[in-house]
Amino acid sequence: MIKKLLIATTNINKLKEINNILSDTVNSLEQLPSDAPDVVEDGATFLDNAKIKAYAYFNMYGMPALADDSGLCVECLNDAPGIYSARYAETPKKRIEKLLKAMEHVKDIEKRRAYFVTRLVLALSKDHYITVEGRVYGNILFEELGENGFGYDPVFLPDGFNRSYAEMSFEEKNEISHRKNALVKMRGLLENIFDSDL
Amino acid sequence: MIKKLLIATTNINKLKEINNILSDTVNSLEQLPSDAPDVVEDGATFLDNAKIKAYAYFNMYGMPALADDSGLCVECLNDAPGIYSARYAETPKKRIEKLLKAMEHVKDIEKRRAYFVTRLVLALSKDHYITVEGRVYGNILFEELGENGFGYDPVFLPDGFNRSYAEMSFEEKNEISHRKNALVKMRGLLENIFDSDL
Repeated sequence: MIKKLLIATTNINKLKEINNILSDTVNSLEQLPSDAPDVVEDGATFLDNAKIKAYAYFNMYGMPALADDSGLCVECLNDAPGIYSARYAETPKKRIEKLLKAMEHVKDIEKRRAYFVTRLVLALSKDHYITVEGRVYGNILFEELGENGFGYDPVFLPDGFNRSYAEMSFEEKNEISHRKNALVKMRGLLENIFDSDL
Repeated sequence: MIKKLLIATTNINKLKEINNILSDTVNSLEQLPSDAPDVVEDGATFLDNAKIKAYAYFNMYGMPALADDSGLCVECLNDAPGIYSARYAETPKKRIEKLLKAMEHVKDIEKRRAYFVTRLVLALSKDHYITVEGRVYGNILFEELGENGFGYDPVFLPDGFNRSYAEMSFEEKNEISHRKNALVKMRGLLENIFDSDL
């Protein structure tokens, strides 16, 4: 059991989800102070970005820090938008439009393969970090379906469901999401990692 | 991937087994120097003992150190011999005799439940350690069977087999052993732990 862990996000939904999954495994889950500075995520991979963020806050606040980077990777676009998912165009609406436009030559839904990914990095100490990845595979729809969620949720049809991420309730999506998937793996690791108290 | 890890044992069979299982996951598995001092394992649990040993060598040689403590726990003896398995009596033969004597009132093989356990501790840094446990459950026989293995192997009948540990070949026992079981768990954790290279 690790005594303290800083959750390096100010997103209230992420905080809630992380708390739900990790609160039994970590003594104390700390939040970023409200004046915490932003961190520039200029890495080349999800792992780089999560690592940059985790170590930035680890160094600022001197305790193990957990950060994530997430995105959507589309097979026929060479895994774009990938790490640029949140800045692929100016607004969420424009981002979806740009994505559907880029894929319009792919008429067969089966060939519109994609996955959402969350990469988590826990900067455990100056010397070591723990990392896990969660993925959910699916297909990109031809038009938006549903009003819930955010980002690319309205055009993502997860495997095994006949509703888009945006047609699911908050709780329902959280139950199967890429982030959940990564957090459950992280919890499994944390169950075996302890403060030495030396 | 962790660059270097010290295997805190001088037992050649343990070394071989650990190498087999971890060599793909750790860049360099180091052995103790031949003049490495012994460590007094005076803890009250398998975990204490493995931790004492791991941190002793971590401090001596300044790199992550993996140590184990193993033993046999017998249900009707309140988990004895437990951490005293290797010093329950003077010689291996006397230890088995003492065990069988202590259990002679338990005539039903089904009630002679026991497990072999290996507790592994990897002293990762001054601040954190990783620990996992492997167990194999079985029953204690009424007399010794087989010539292989060591310790209590001749009287331990692992669940799902009709031969004692000592009736199995070295390779066969290693394939199902409590140590194997723990090492495979440790490997799973190490796959997600990396040197930060900061």
